[in-house]
Amino acid sequence: MIIVMARGAGEAAIAAVVGKIRAHGLSEHVSRGTERTIIGAVGDERVLSADMFELMDGVERAMRVLKDYRLVAREVHGSDSVVHVRGIPFGGKQLQLIAGPCSVETAAQMDASAAAVKASGARLLRGGAFKPRSSPYSFQGLGVAGLDLLLEAGRAHGLPVVTELMDVRQLDTFLEYDVDVIQIGARNMQNFDLLKEVGRINKPVVLKRGMAATVNEWLMAAEYIAAGGNHNIIFCERGIRSFETAYRNMLDVSAIALLKRETHLPVIADPSHAGGKAWMVPALSMAALAAGADGLMIEVHPQPAEALCDADQALDPQAFAQLMQQLAVLAPALGREL
Amino acid sequence: MIIVMARGAGEAAIAAVVGKIRAHGLSEHVSRGTERTIIGAVGDERVLSADMFELMDGVERAMRVLKDYRLVAREVHGSDSVVHVRGIPFGGKQLQLIAGPCSVETAAQMDASAAAVKASGARLLRGGAFKPRSSPYSFQGLGVAGLDLLLEAGRAHGLPVVTELMDVRQLDTFLEYDVDVIQIGARNMQNFDLLKEVGRINKPVVLKRGMAATVNEWLMAAEYIAAGGNHNIIFCERGIRSFETAYRNMLDVSAIALLKRETHLPVIADPSHAGGKAWMVPALSMAALAAGADGLMIEVHPQPAEALCDADQALDPQAFAQLMQQLAVLAPALGREL
Amino acid sequence: MIIVMARGAGEAAIAAVVGKIRAHGLSEHVSRGTERTIIGAVGDERVLSADMFELMDGVERAMRVLKDYRLVAREVHGSDSVVHVRGIPFGGKQLQLIAGPCSVETAAQMDASAAAVKASGARLLRGGAFKPRSSPYSFQGLGVAGLDLLLEAGRAHGLPVVTELMDVRQLDTFLEYDVDVIQIGARNMQNFDLLKEVGRINKPVVLKRGMAATVNEWLMAAEYIAAGGNHNIIFCERGIRSFETAYRNMLDVSAIALLKRETHLPVIADPSHAGGKAWMVPALSMAALAAGADGLMIEVHPQPAEALCDADQALDPQAFAQLMQQLAVLAPALGREL
Amino acid sequence: MIIVMARGAGEAAIAAVVGKIRAHGLSEHVSRGTERTIIGAVGDERVLSADMFELMDGVERAMRVLKDYRLVAREVHGSDSVVHVRGIPFGGKQLQLIAGPCSVETAAQMDASAAAVKASGARLLRGGAFKPRSSPYSFQGLGVAGLDLLLEAGRAHGLPVVTELMDVRQLDTFLEYDVDVIQIGARNMQNFDLLKEVGRINKPVVLKRGMAATVNEWLMAAEYIAAGGNHNIIFCERGIRSFETAYRNMLDVSAIALLKRETHLPVIADPSHAGGKAWMVPALSMAALAAGADGLMIEVHPQPAEALCDADQALDPQAFAQLMQQLAVLAPALGREL
Repeated sequence: MIIVMARGAGEAAIAAVVGKIRAHGLSEHVSRGTERTIIGAVGDERVLSADMFELMDGVERAMRVLKDYRLVAREVHGSDSVVHVRGIPFGGKQLQLIAGPCSVETAAQMDASAAAVKASGARLLRGGAFKPRSSPYSFQGLGVAGLDLLLEAGRAHGLPVVTELMDVRQLDTFLEYDVDVIQIGARNMQNFDLLKEVGRINKPVVLKRGMAATVNEWLMAAEYIAAGGNHNIIFCERGIRSFETAYRNMLDVSAIALLKRETHLPVIADPSHAGGKAWMVPALSMAALAAGADGLMIEVHPQPAEALCDADQALDPQAFAQLMQQLAVLAPALGREL
Repeated sequence: MIIVMARGAGEAAIAAVVGKIRAHGLSEHVSRGTERTIIGAVGDERVLSADMFELMDGVERAMRVLKDYRLVAREVHGSDSVVHVRGIPFGGKQLQLIAGPCSVETAAQMDASAAAVKASGARLLRGGAFKPRSSPYSFQGLGVAGLDLLLEAGRAHGLPVVTELMDVRQLDTFLEYDVDVIQIGARNMQNFDLLKEVGRINKPVVLKRGMAATVNEWLMAAEYIAAGGNHNIIFCERGIRSFETAYRNMLDVSAIALLKRETHLPVIADPSHAGGKAWMVPALSMAALAAGADGLMIEVHPQPAEALCDADQALDPQAFAQLMQQLAVLAPALGREL
Repeated sequence: MIIVMARGAGEAAIAAVVGKIRAHGLSEHVSRGTERTIIGAVGDERVLSADMFELMDGVERAMRVLKDYRLVAREVHGSDSVVHVRGIPFGGKQLQLIAGPCSVETAAQMDASAAAVKASGARLLRGGAFKPRSSPYSFQGLGVAGLDLLLEAGRAHGLPVVTELMDVRQLDTFLEYDVDVIQIGARNMQNFDLLKEVGRINKPVVLKRGMAATVNEWLMAAEYIAAGGNHNIIFCERGIRSFETAYRNMLDVSAIALLKRETHLPVIADPSHAGGKAWMVPALSMAALAAGADGLMIEVHPQPAEALCDADQALDPQAFAQLMQQLAVLAPALGREL
Repeated sequence: MIIVMARGAGEAAIAAVVGKIRAHGLSEHVSRGTERTIIGAVGDERVLSADMFELMDGVERAMRVLKDYRLVAREVHGSDSVVHVRGIPFGGKQLQLIAGPCSVETAAQMDASAAAVKASGARLLRGGAFKPRSSPYSFQGLGVAGLDLLLEAGRAHGLPVVTELMDVRQLDTFLEYDVDVIQIGARNMQNFDLLKEVGRINKPVVLKRGMAATVNEWLMAAEYIAAGGNHNIIFCERGIRSFETAYRNMLDVSAIALLKRETHLPVIADPSHAGGKAWMVPALSMAALAAGADGLMIEVHPQPAEALCDADQALDPQAFAQLMQQLAVLAPALGREL
């Protein structure tokens, strides 16, 4: 912690700051500048907060120096961590594609989706059984019946499944169904009780970035899961909210690059939710991988125009197969394999 | 729903759109312009979504015309609704102040807080027992023990209490303790399962705005609660996330003005979380009320510099009493009373 | 400047940083923490930049401690500065209202506007002769002919005039016409050549905030003007760009409160451009003044529905007169006078 | 234009809207829905504005249907336009790299920069002679002397030069010096007088996106230039301002994809200003090209740590050469050549 004293702060104010630092078990370095005095707190500053000092007389600003995250930090764990989902590695040389419809609708739709996903070479199936919808009057997902259909299609086609958990009370059901990867959606990135619960199990977790979350907050959300003992975390960039109205969200490729530097954990991107338009998916997919992503999660629906949610952003099987071919060309140019 | 066809869209494309409108039980009006054809869907458009059309050949854009919210809309329920908390009215002529510490810490702290709140003329006591913190290593609140201390202080000083519910599994405890007002925090504004649960009870709910939520999304979150049968909803503007780093959040007074026009329900503001600095609280309090807010929620702590969270933004009892005097002067100029 | 060394940075890296600090004529304080070393640069740090250090081996971050603005800083010039426009004080106890149409259209329109402005008790007349429009095909203003009409109406009704300067080549014309207050629009807040030119004259300048400018950048823009010798600067908050689409811009009342603390210069607000809707103007006007603004700039048009620009946000004379009555009630509650 | 009437708007209100549409030479289609009446204006709606209608009694909303841009729109001019700079094509199969220092400092620095740029295979040299700096106390560029050094280095190494024009009064000098490409910076994207002036000449113009400009506003800024007769426009995405503080700006790859769809003109990206950190440049460069960019503008400085501005984001010659090798591998995977 660095405490910057206001211009003209007196000795009593400086002594009070020093006293507070010592009271918390740290020691201080006092730097008397020409215009201001600056005090550094030496020791484990995690017991301090900027607030504690900023309210004191004569203090202008207090700044934390250390990063708040530990378990997920690359600084602590230098090499890349690989998260395995039934033997499929996230975070290694191989790029992973998770594909499937926004929401689970029928057995036929899921079977067609899984077949298309499998045929294209993607290795995991997605599908929402519980859907977070802005309106209480919109289709909310099939619920447990949707899990049945998803698992059935996944098992039939040899694809591990990824699906979203919204309510902590459903976790037992997810475990019973042996869902392969639990997705925490953007709206729940700071649902701390939910994070704590998925931290207590051992399932891989895809953690989406909150709509307006900083990368630091996102890392701290992952730290909640890791602090519980579950280190099988895959970050998923899905675009942030911005002033631009021409696309649903703004895919933040800088965040991908920054995460790959700050954490040892794998990072994927969701170009479907980011752009919100099917025609944008190929360009955003390529950009995310070029920025360093370890994989993608893409919406694919056998008949997009009939989808019960997000029809506008799903690829049909043919468009997805074509994109997979493009990615197969791109991967080696990035030193990766598909 | 209005569907704008692309330049040069042919008759087949137009017929397909018309077919889809009719298939959903609505009828159409087709407007052939010099550059484009525009098709209006006539009937209850809530069964349609823009996605359904935007994916069709020859369609450029589809726009919803009706608003998505109904129960909370002023359009439906012209006059102001007043939400009563143990007889204290929110949404009438009287302005309501909710005050107290960010988090419940000790019996002495709560007693001193409640005494200060009562003495100043504010009518409700706040205090967090369960705290949403960005870091798993920060103080997470006293939990149930905190509810005990909060209720005790509130009952002793005759102040109904307001406290945050984060986890749906705690709802029964909140009901057992007979918490007077349940607060849904910014991070849970779109925790739809939580919204549905508080929709099933009859307690007043303070619904804070999400960090980057549009006013429309916020109204829809309230609609989730109202759709469950609970119409005792109080909106609370607490600032949005912006590019500005000089203050924690940006208090959005336009949202207050817009809500007062769009909904019949009461609206309050939280100037403490908005600004994030104690010195900003008076100016933001005045601004929120001048924009039309029906009340304020303010952090007050007997010794701010010792607070376990958000020390930097809490007022001490003296500063709060002084603010109450300013507000007493302001209220009649706004046609309100304190 | 504070330089935070990376974990494990060696002595050579520390010595290099110290060397660079000394090479710029400052001295250093080195603080060796348990995890990191922190180096403070003591002296006039304005000759340093964070960039210089962040690129060096072993440096994690460099942070400036001093504020970049000087002439406009309250720290330097404690009491409020009052800017006088033909004897009308901005920044004292009296609140000032600048009103008039978005753009100058006809002599009749300007005469009716000026009459309405005068009758309501406002003291300055606004009107755009040169208009910044997003589209090259929109009405661009009457140009010099507009200045004629504006000045004529202002002089006839005894109202000093405020109008926007967009092009540095028009400055001589503005001086010839003896425009009373020069407005620098949001899009030109960082048009540094324009700022330098208005810094060389002595006319009062209304400096609008850029669409996505931080308060610090805004203060620095004013510093450009002040550095040229012109200290007659009036800040004007006009709303920032945000993700919210329900209103044009988001009025930032926190910025008003912060500016009143950071600078000695007067601050006004433009609720018309902020909200972009006439019905929002009264609420935003009240909120801006309650937050501490020294005045307002409001669009008034004799027949808003016929206005050539921003029709949607102008008040008609009757609505403006009514707002002035509300403000007359509010002012004393804020310790001000109208 | 589509005008949505409020619920319960009467016949008189509808007739007034129809009258206004006709008065502007268009005709109407009236669609009477179950809840609302919707009126479409048929004809060239560019003479109408939403404002005109939204202020009328009984009107809830008015929406423009047509896009505002014409000359720059792909809709009008289907195939890609190629902008040639001394024979170097922007917008064809070949990717173009513009590289060089942020600001021109000395003859030696420019010579070393140009040599490095040339050796790496990039085809154009950048360097700022006039610098937009947030602080009036920062280095403002060498001015005309800087143009001399830039042109000299460019001509000596056979590299056309790109440099920023900030002040309309400098345009003649730029023409005299025969600068090859004129850059309009982010802060001047809506400096409409400057846009009009560069619209009157025939030089290629690099038009950077404003800090918080929508893609539509950016296209309209280009339309200003095109409307003057100059169609040699190259868009340059340089990141937008966001809430994230971990990087300078947020590179918006979705904007690149959208522009390639909406306009026939070439699009490049500036990963140096976007990320603000040298280590981010390779990842962002790859991402921008993968999203469809036709080239890049990158800061390269012989000794970044000594640079007078933006030291933190410049690559040294070795890092740049290495990046060029990576791009040479990437280009064919994107169907491009370097």
